[in-house]
Amino acid sequence: MKAHTLWLQNTLSGQKEAFEPINPPFVGLYVCGPTVYNEVHMGNLRTFISFDVLNRYLRYLGYTVRYVRNITDVGHLTDDSGEDRVEKRARLEKIEPMEIVQKYSRGFHRVSDVFGLLDPDIEPTATGHIVEQISMIESVIAKGFAYEANGSVYFDVEKYAKKHNYGQLSGRVLEELDQQTRNLDGGEDKRFFADFALWKKASDETIMKWPSPWGIGVPGWHLECSAMSTKYLGKTFDIHGGGMDLKFPHHECEIAQCQAAEEGSSARYWMHTNMLTINGTKMSKSLNNSILPMEFVSGEHDLLERGYPPMVVKFFMYQTHYSSPLDFSNEALQAAEKGFIRLQKGMELLENIPEGKGSKEDASVLLDALNDALHHLTDDLNTPRCIASLFEVTNSIQRMQHHSTSLDSDTKSQCLAIFKGIVHQVLGLELSTNHAHNDSLDKVMDALLGIRKKARTEKNWAVADALRDGLSSVGVTFSDNKEGSSWEIK
Amino acid sequence: MKAHTLWLQNTLSGQKEAFEPINPPFVGLYVCGPTVYNEVHMGNLRTFISFDVLNRYLRYLGYTVRYVRNITDVGHLTDDSGEDRVEKRARLEKIEPMEIVQKYSRGFHRVSDVFGLLDPDIEPTATGHIVEQISMIESVIAKGFAYEANGSVYFDVEKYAKKHNYGQLSGRVLEELDQQTRNLDGGEDKRFFADFALWKKASDETIMKWPSPWGIGVPGWHLECSAMSTKYLGKTFDIHGGGMDLKFPHHECEIAQCQAAEEGSSARYWMHTNMLTINGTKMSKSLNNSILPMEFVSGEHDLLERGYPPMVVKFFMYQTHYSSPLDFSNEALQAAEKGFIRLQKGMELLENIPEGKGSKEDASVLLDALNDALHHLTDDLNTPRCIASLFEVTNSIQRMQHHSTSLDSDTKSQCLAIFKGIVHQVLGLELSTNHAHNDSLDKVMDALLGIRKKARTEKNWAVADALRDGLSSVGVTFSDNKEGSSWEIK
Repeated sequence: MKAHTLWLQNTLSGQKEAFEPINPPFVGLYVCGPTVYNEVHMGNLRTFISFDVLNRYLRYLGYTVRYVRNITDVGHLTDDSGEDRVEKRARLEKIEPMEIVQKYSRGFHRVSDVFGLLDPDIEPTATGHIVEQISMIESVIAKGFAYEANGSVYFDVEKYAKKHNYGQLSGRVLEELDQQTRNLDGGEDKRFFADFALWKKASDETIMKWPSPWGIGVPGWHLECSAMSTKYLGKTFDIHGGGMDLKFPHHECEIAQCQAAEEGSSARYWMHTNMLTINGTKMSKSLNNSILPMEFVSGEHDLLERGYPPMVVKFFMYQTHYSSPLDFSNEALQAAEKGFIRLQKGMELLENIPEGKGSKEDASVLLDALNDALHHLTDDLNTPRCIASLFEVTNSIQRMQHHSTSLDSDTKSQCLAIFKGIVHQVLGLELSTNHAHNDSLDKVMDALLGIRKKARTEKNWAVADALRDGLSSVGVTFSDNKEGSSWEIK
Repeated sequence: MKAHTLWLQNTLSGQKEAFEPINPPFVGLYVCGPTVYNEVHMGNLRTFISFDVLNRYLRYLGYTVRYVRNITDVGHLTDDSGEDRVEKRARLEKIEPMEIVQKYSRGFHRVSDVFGLLDPDIEPTATGHIVEQISMIESVIAKGFAYEANGSVYFDVEKYAKKHNYGQLSGRVLEELDQQTRNLDGGEDKRFFADFALWKKASDETIMKWPSPWGIGVPGWHLECSAMSTKYLGKTFDIHGGGMDLKFPHHECEIAQCQAAEEGSSARYWMHTNMLTINGTKMSKSLNNSILPMEFVSGEHDLLERGYPPMVVKFFMYQTHYSSPLDFSNEALQAAEKGFIRLQKGMELLENIPEGKGSKEDASVLLDALNDALHHLTDDLNTPRCIASLFEVTNSIQRMQHHSTSLDSDTKSQCLAIFKGIVHQVLGLELSTNHAHNDSLDKVMDALLGIRKKARTEKNWAVADALRDGLSSVGVTFSDNKEGSSWEIK
């Protein structure tokens, strides 16, 4: 496997680069996770699905991956009930941000399970790393790249930019950055328009806040990812990913923080996923076209004609490269569903192809197409091309079945291993049979096929007819062909 | 509903007390959750199931509950690879306790979902509250009830006991406490044998550790629950629960810490669940009789004859009071399964009882038994008696059905509301039909019952026998009684 070199588009260099881990076989992967103050939206999920493929593929290639995806649970909720109420009476009446965090964290995990994502190895929370964040601020201050002002601490972008390449990731040029990007909050305390908060002084009304050397406050938005990625993956680690909307300012600031705290420290490969549109329009709550992941499954949204199985939604997503915008429509989802079913059929046919001498040509066409599918993944996870190759594989298999060709046993098991490896292990698609998870039904129907066969052999038409007539009323049909008898239920 | 007073056995007073929340309709409930360094065992799950009933019942009674159950994720893993290795190469090779935490937290959540437990409102983690724990230690030191020694901080039990009732919860008398309970670790630094650590100096090899005013270390075992319960529920809150093995020293020390940090601060009602045995023997790993929750479901354990649906396991547990030891056996589980099915039948029969004038007597017998069932829950959550009353309800319904009695519409809906309220809302039992989520199987089997009936009517024994013989091989049996024919599949 390792013979294939994996190429990744690195936002930092703007180039597709051969992936070389710092310390093989270990790979450190960090992805910016959800903010758990509302339900995870489909754009987030696309990012997590894309990096799920990367995580799975790295493991498939034999790497030992530590996949860290954070949960942003620092809320900025305020409580205006005032501090003068008797604490013991008021505590339970107060909004507690951690209740919201709990609700949406559990909800996010349930969605991840429905879509068959592998759990990250570590899911650190921002509130769980206040100590580490404070330590990192202290390092940045000690290196002279941050200053305290009125209970807050700001990163000194102007000073940093004199020594480092601020803007390297996003391509923004500091001199050209519109002064309108100024964050008005704290504007008076900042020395330079592009400076950003490492620590923000908390108001009396802020509910979540912590003591620090600079007073009671909250960590800045960009800090948690720097503190947590380096804590669990090391000062310099392999891959950092996220949605492209995080490139600036979030990831640019992450790099600055890490470099300022300890020179040479940052991720080596930065990867960004693209956005979602629906019927060609950007998803947004105000346009009422923002569909939640579980609504795709249930179909409970005005813009959806019906629900789609989660694996179909994933399969649909894979047909666009992660770095390109992805447009949802009912037509496209329905086409994806047909394609997904075709792929499943292909795998079933391959499993049932008789083993025999077979033709060398058929075998090599099949193996080549499968190796192509695998090879496309090494090209910056080119899932659309990978799936196109899998369709070619399916075509070949159908041709072989049509011509009643056999495959030699070794080739067959080799082909099945690659096919299943790509579909199950790398793409994380769980194929369903017609009657998945319904063992009892299968057992009963198999027994009925047996009764029917015996009756026909014995020309006991009463039994055969009774079964056919009695079961057709509930949608069961039996059919017979060369390979034997089968049943179907509608 | 509120007319019923809820009585709870309070370990603190040793009495059954009427429950009066501090600030109705709010109720603060804290339960000691799992340590996520291995799989949650059945004893833990019994505790969480018991408090799930309390949480559900309080909500049923109309209270607004904030249910906090912590996750203990502070590990004491050590890494002996030494600090001299190049950090950037070594980081990913090191054991990372948070990977273990992640694995078992997600596993625990999945088990909770399988057993139908409501999510707690907040699930705070120990590592997520280092700042709060350090603040609490500072308060205890400031009040003079703790001392620093060699980078650790100990709680001064001797001094505390002069002013407070140390031992109130567990009934331990300090003077009689065997000096063998001395925790050897840190023994030299402690002034008094019963003193316990609030902060422990970390060794070089300890992986999880944090800076503090006393140096690098880890919080003491008992501290997290005190810091987190009071943070989210207030200095004084309503109910604190856990397994009885936590009474001493854990809960006793929690009370001491809270009282020492702020006088008068603690939970008002302390509730403790009892232990599990299997075939009369204590569960333990060394006896190989410790069965994991999911093994009960799958049946994959030498001591289990087969798997049991999670709702049957819960139903079985409810037939013993939470404060009594609970003994598992295959016989008892199978008996519980029969009982559970009977209860389901009862509810189905009630749903199908014809509406009409009905007899006043029948109606009042039924309503009385249902109110009894509800009333038993007010008696310290007496689930065994509650279920006994539900069986009486089921008997009454069966009698009514046998005599083709009807119920007036109001009484019927009142009865159904109470029945479902107890079973679904309070006990969290999701009733399944025989073959839940298996509509196709039901359809097929109903059709087969039809074929069989027709064949028997027409004395077409060939068909009837073929069905019986062919299906018995896959575990299907048909049976006939007054109400008609039914089928079962094993």
